[in-house]
Amino acid sequence: MEVKVVKNLLEANERIAHEIKEMFSSRGIYVVNLMSAPGAGKTTLVEKTVEALKDNWKIGIIEGDIATAIDAERISSHGIPVVQVNTGSACHLDGNMIRDALDELPLDSLDLLIVENVGNLVCPAEFKVGEDDKVMILSTPEGSDKPVKYPLMFQESSLLLINKIDLLPHIDCDLTTMKENARKVNPKLEIIEVSCKTGEGLDKWFAWLNKKIEQKTAGKN
Amino acid sequence: MEVKVVKNLLEANERIAHEIKEMFSSRGIYVVNLMSAPGAGKTTLVEKTVEALKDNWKIGIIEGDIATAIDAERISSHGIPVVQVNTGSACHLDGNMIRDALDELPLDSLDLLIVENVGNLVCPAEFKVGEDDKVMILSTPEGSDKPVKYPLMFQESSLLLINKIDLLPHIDCDLTTMKENARKVNPKLEIIEVSCKTGEGLDKWFAWLNKKIEQKTAGKN
Repeated sequence: MEVKVVKNLLEANERIAHEIKEMFSSRGIYVVNLMSAPGAGKTTLVEKTVEALKDNWKIGIIEGDIATAIDAERISSHGIPVVQVNTGSACHLDGNMIRDALDELPLDSLDLLIVENVGNLVCPAEFKVGEDDKVMILSTPEGSDKPVKYPLMFQESSLLLINKIDLLPHIDCDLTTMKENARKVNPKLEIIEVSCKTGEGLDKWFAWLNKKIEQKTAGKN
Repeated sequence: MEVKVVKNLLEANERIAHEIKEMFSSRGIYVVNLMSAPGAGKTTLVEKTVEALKDNWKIGIIEGDIATAIDAERISSHGIPVVQVNTGSACHLDGNMIRDALDELPLDSLDLLIVENVGNLVCPAEFKVGEDDKVMILSTPEGSDKPVKYPLMFQESSLLLINKIDLLPHIDCDLTTMKENARKVNPKLEIIEVSCKTGEGLDKWFAWLNKKIEQKTAGKN
């Protein structure tokens, strides 16, 4: 019973996510589903990304949180459209929640939509939200064993950002092992090391993202 | 449909968890459900706790992980019984999984059972596993806003251990705000600040736990 219901839920979500993705593609909007455990640095990364790219591209943000509008308030201070989705007891965003949030975004003008998922290294990886790419963050204090202990998100993601590399001198985290473990569960995974605090490595992330947006928006007037 | 099924699942789990809890109580075993986000320090805390208490109490551990037996191997090196539960795609432990694991533990002689849950700041808080107390860890790099953004686990827990206080000089985390936010969502929450790395504050955690075990095991032969 439980298994069947979960399967139906996932299948229904696949359909909705596919519809949304088609709509995004018809408008030439590149969509990132940004995922991580709580406190890995998603919102800070979004803020840095908005500041770096907002003069070149029209950006919109969907903020997913169990409760509060803290993250949406942080983002809206950067002068771009942001929608807060509060999931209540739900531990992830799904296609339905994104579809409902779209009415509040200027879809006609967007080039990039970043969907910041609920902080959770498990459940969000199972639910598509219409994205072109899943991008995930793993922060160094979480430890080098996390890719093998929580494999699905690493398997589903196109890019892994290893954040908080500025903390490496102060913690027991072997970056080489962390990257080896990530590539063990997903040999195709691209990896960029960053510090959202010092800015180190962020230029590589901006370049990765710029290229993706250029490809998706090519041909738009 | 979805809501009803979830409600049934939770109700079924409440029944099973209640049965297990009665069994633990009849044997005078104190049970902790230990929860946190991934990488907050659960396994290191368990290792330190086992070393500090194993001469005074008979301890058993259940390790919950999506995949791998890394944590169970770490714990078993300390010479106490440990059972690894791999949840597959499930993002939390539930009563059924614990009941199935009990066959492999020497229940007749145990005083303390620590159930280390899957690393997830959301879902484990909804499912009882027969515990006397939920104890949670929040590590300083996760940020001071987490109690208000993920309130349920803080509301359900008896004790919050704030871990990695050794990192405070290197990160942007206001400990006062973190504690205020935790007490905002649960005014009764006890809080102990620790560093599993340096050992700071762990004596207070051991004292808290010793008192709980003494109360639960009183009257045993």
